[in-house]
Amino acid sequence: MTQFKKIGILGRLESASVANTLEKLIHLLDDKNIEYAFESALKDSLPGPGYVCKSRADLGAESDLIIVVGGDGTLLGVARDLAEFETPVLGINRGRLGFLTDIMPEETDQKVSEVLDGDYVLEHRFLLEVKVVRDGEVIQSGSALNDVVLHPGQSIRMIEFELLVDGQFVYSQRSDGLIVSTPTGSTAYALSAGGPIMHPNMNAMVLVPMFPHALTSRPLMIDGDSRVAIRIGRDNILPPQVSCDAQEHLPTEAGDILEISKLKHRLNLLHPSRHEYYETCRTKLGWGKRLAE
Amino acid sequence: MTQFKKIGILGRLESASVANTLEKLIHLLDDKNIEYAFESALKDSLPGPGYVCKSRADLGAESDLIIVVGGDGTLLGVARDLAEFETPVLGINRGRLGFLTDIMPEETDQKVSEVLDGDYVLEHRFLLEVKVVRDGEVIQSGSALNDVVLHPGQSIRMIEFELLVDGQFVYSQRSDGLIVSTPTGSTAYALSAGGPIMHPNMNAMVLVPMFPHALTSRPLMIDGDSRVAIRIGRDNILPPQVSCDAQEHLPTEAGDILEISKLKHRLNLLHPSRHEYYETCRTKLGWGKRLAE
Amino acid sequence: MTQFKKIGILGRLESASVANTLEKLIHLLDDKNIEYAFESALKDSLPGPGYVCKSRADLGAESDLIIVVGGDGTLLGVARDLAEFETPVLGINRGRLGFLTDIMPEETDQKVSEVLDGDYVLEHRFLLEVKVVRDGEVIQSGSALNDVVLHPGQSIRMIEFELLVDGQFVYSQRSDGLIVSTPTGSTAYALSAGGPIMHPNMNAMVLVPMFPHALTSRPLMIDGDSRVAIRIGRDNILPPQVSCDAQEHLPTEAGDILEISKLKHRLNLLHPSRHEYYETCRTKLGWGKRLAE
Amino acid sequence: MTQFKKIGILGRLESASVANTLEKLIHLLDDKNIEYAFESALKDSLPGPGYVCKSRADLGAESDLIIVVGGDGTLLGVARDLAEFETPVLGINRGRLGFLTDIMPEETDQKVSEVLDGDYVLEHRFLLEVKVVRDGEVIQSGSALNDVVLHPGQSIRMIEFELLVDGQFVYSQRSDGLIVSTPTGSTAYALSAGGPIMHPNMNAMVLVPMFPHALTSRPLMIDGDSRVAIRIGRDNILPPQVSCDAQEHLPTEAGDILEISKLKHRLNLLHPSRHEYYETCRTKLGWGKRLAE
Repeated sequence: MTQFKKIGILGRLESASVANTLEKLIHLLDDKNIEYAFESALKDSLPGPGYVCKSRADLGAESDLIIVVGGDGTLLGVARDLAEFETPVLGINRGRLGFLTDIMPEETDQKVSEVLDGDYVLEHRFLLEVKVVRDGEVIQSGSALNDVVLHPGQSIRMIEFELLVDGQFVYSQRSDGLIVSTPTGSTAYALSAGGPIMHPNMNAMVLVPMFPHALTSRPLMIDGDSRVAIRIGRDNILPPQVSCDAQEHLPTEAGDILEISKLKHRLNLLHPSRHEYYETCRTKLGWGKRLAE
Repeated sequence: MTQFKKIGILGRLESASVANTLEKLIHLLDDKNIEYAFESALKDSLPGPGYVCKSRADLGAESDLIIVVGGDGTLLGVARDLAEFETPVLGINRGRLGFLTDIMPEETDQKVSEVLDGDYVLEHRFLLEVKVVRDGEVIQSGSALNDVVLHPGQSIRMIEFELLVDGQFVYSQRSDGLIVSTPTGSTAYALSAGGPIMHPNMNAMVLVPMFPHALTSRPLMIDGDSRVAIRIGRDNILPPQVSCDAQEHLPTEAGDILEISKLKHRLNLLHPSRHEYYETCRTKLGWGKRLAE
Repeated sequence: MTQFKKIGILGRLESASVANTLEKLIHLLDDKNIEYAFESALKDSLPGPGYVCKSRADLGAESDLIIVVGGDGTLLGVARDLAEFETPVLGINRGRLGFLTDIMPEETDQKVSEVLDGDYVLEHRFLLEVKVVRDGEVIQSGSALNDVVLHPGQSIRMIEFELLVDGQFVYSQRSDGLIVSTPTGSTAYALSAGGPIMHPNMNAMVLVPMFPHALTSRPLMIDGDSRVAIRIGRDNILPPQVSCDAQEHLPTEAGDILEISKLKHRLNLLHPSRHEYYETCRTKLGWGKRLAE
Repeated sequence: MTQFKKIGILGRLESASVANTLEKLIHLLDDKNIEYAFESALKDSLPGPGYVCKSRADLGAESDLIIVVGGDGTLLGVARDLAEFETPVLGINRGRLGFLTDIMPEETDQKVSEVLDGDYVLEHRFLLEVKVVRDGEVIQSGSALNDVVLHPGQSIRMIEFELLVDGQFVYSQRSDGLIVSTPTGSTAYALSAGGPIMHPNMNAMVLVPMFPHALTSRPLMIDGDSRVAIRIGRDNILPPQVSCDAQEHLPTEAGDILEISKLKHRLNLLHPSRHEYYETCRTKLGWGKRLAE
């Protein structure tokens, strides 16, 4: 008997490997007599007609488990879209191992079966919320599981901004932008930009300058409950942009203030029970294995 | 009226600027009718005979405020030596601004006076404890406010070791060593080695590899309550060493295990009341000032 | 007596400090009875009517010395525009010290006078030429004194490309782009991206990956006479761009090949005779001064 | 018919895989009727008595080809020891692919045979010479194929020194030391320390600071014919050391000057004819392969 009675299945579109995994899931869930429904967008990847399809929001509201078939990028979008429901999410990778989607396609039957039987690890991952404030009013907002990035919109243009943390002025900076990353995002874009790797259980953010003009600007680690404010300088010729997980983009104007802090909802991420974070690091980053005794 | 009734004064030896600051303190404390005593080692820096001098340990046990005159290095030693007493510590710098000793010599009268009058900020800084375990027994131990560093003893020799965090294997590594740094130490040696800056209120450690053979080894941030274990490889020709704050050095042997975790005692560091951490960063690292509105 | 008989004066527009320097130059050149003309665009910054104004190209063709009043950015544009004439160029900075424009405003009279009297150092700086090749034909080209940068046009989008040097395949890479920098450019954008500083007399280029997906991608230094080819991958969704000195931008398409090599013309840059490259580094980068003996 | 008539064979001691390769070489050279001799130190790794053994120096003087069986570390020592003879050197790796010893054990027969038949690429690699000058006199000297490193002898002690290039003062620095690397050494220790990769045909050195106290100290690339001088500061408590290829170590004293420049002899390194430098990089560093067309 499983605790999960209604499963919502979401996925990356137009991928033969996704269709194959969906078919496996159908067999598995039918076998176990568990109710399930698909995101409408997946309709063409299903083995035939007659399957229940719903909107992403409906699945989030009604399911007690969300299975995401795709890569880490797919899961990022699901995490943002369904954050408010806090439904547990399980990721099945469609190819290369991911940091978030850590069930490999060939393990689908066994690992998903185990999770359904209650043999899993539940991990909380926090998201960021960003608000664009103009003349004292919030004019736009977004959320991110990996990172909120302020950048000039066009590549290789410099922007100028001020950073404040918990109301304290930190620095002004001229650079290609600033990455505000969660621990989850620390192995993504922030890592390419020279940031540290943060264990996902950390309550911390890291602020990583992008190609800063001053060589003394370095990644800055702050408490996860900090309130970050970035005031966009008045001299920027192009209006900078804010990107959430490199997937959603908000325009800004000179003088706008970005307010970034922890989102009140969090992602409940499920892993198969023998999952180890550092093993994923070793595999994806080529870290050294155990030494001979 | 002050809450501090017995002051212990410690300092860096053989420095004319220290003697000058000691004299200022004597006037100030006499004026305020506060009892004080000096560390015996400072005897020759005092303006004359007749001052009460005691051992460092006695001062730690008996004082309700310790004033350290010197640089950050002096304060590191005091913090380790007097950790068990948890006596509040105030640092007066003898020259260039420090991250820990943030009262400048010329501000001594005013700032110390304010602190004595209760106008201060109290900050808790955690220390690390390191135990060298051989064949299951702790054969040596040490503590550090900045960092515990495993290194080959001789420069530019490579060592091999395994890292475990909370019992989970992380990686084996061949490098010039590993820095385990507190937030306090993140602006010291770890920064030179490419580590991030951590706000001092973080409950976190950063593990920074030193010249790792593999380019994918990066600074790793973990929870401050983690238990770090480093198993020294059996193939190391020279016996590596462990250094605490680069001031105390423990020998090790191949096969030894270093156990590193938070020390149960913490440093109670006092700052003048308008102290801002980021202002020290801006001054010492040359970060950008406020932009024109 | 001076070897320079016809001076062309170019500069950054709309800057009061430029107008001031122009007036100083007029006095100096009138005193020395040297013929001079201004770039037409400077007309409104001149102290009055009646001065000879010409197009930038005419000045390049007719002058035997070009004086640039502005910042390093202004000189970059002049160097590209007038490269074919190889006329000697002298830079007067309008504010903060530059790496290229190393006469400070307050030194204008003395230093320019010395240069006119033959007391100067001549330095050759090479430029890069970039050709965009589509289906075997060169469809666009540009030149750069600092750097040629391939980037995705939009910030924080990844691009994929192959790199070949002298016909040898080097690597394929997924990143935010690639900087191909001259020694002159090594203290500009390439430095922010983690590249080394190259002494300007080096016959070398450095290829610096921008936020590469793989942590093992590092700055690569090659001979200055190498032929670099970058083949833009076919899977890039957005058409990447090529930027020259971050001032000129060429569009590309998937499958295009960028051919980058040394331009046949070089910049003849004049410095006052006591100019030292490393002194500029020390001033701009805050490197340490001489130790006490 | 081969141009190589007298072969000297050197190698790493006490390794079963070396003995195996030596036996292959004996068969090959006997088959081809080429005269050969072994370094005396290899005597115990030979398949029996009766083989000609000589000192390393005699082999360098008499051979017209040196074959080194071992790793890159073995070849470094041979290159330094036999530099004066400029005898061509071929490296056979005993295990993992090396940057210098690029024939794999299983390819020995074919690749060595090809080289002996004249089917090879000859590459010149320059070495560095370092002289320790005290009170105007050279008191010691050494040579290096990879790098000359100034360091404090003991790990994690800081040293202070001044750098001059071609008589021009560059900077003073407080750090764990300085790496002066050839292009050959740029994929070794200098790479771990953050230096760029230099193509081996470059006439350049890179100076890489080790954990510099100032964050603005960066790798500096200079002409290969530069004369580097490092003046060791008078305030260093411990006498620093100079290491050549991390294999030879010279003591120094405060106030000593290290003079580093290109050695007049160079290494003539042979490669099999289809050798490509970047292929070794791709294999050892995991760089990306060709993209699909």
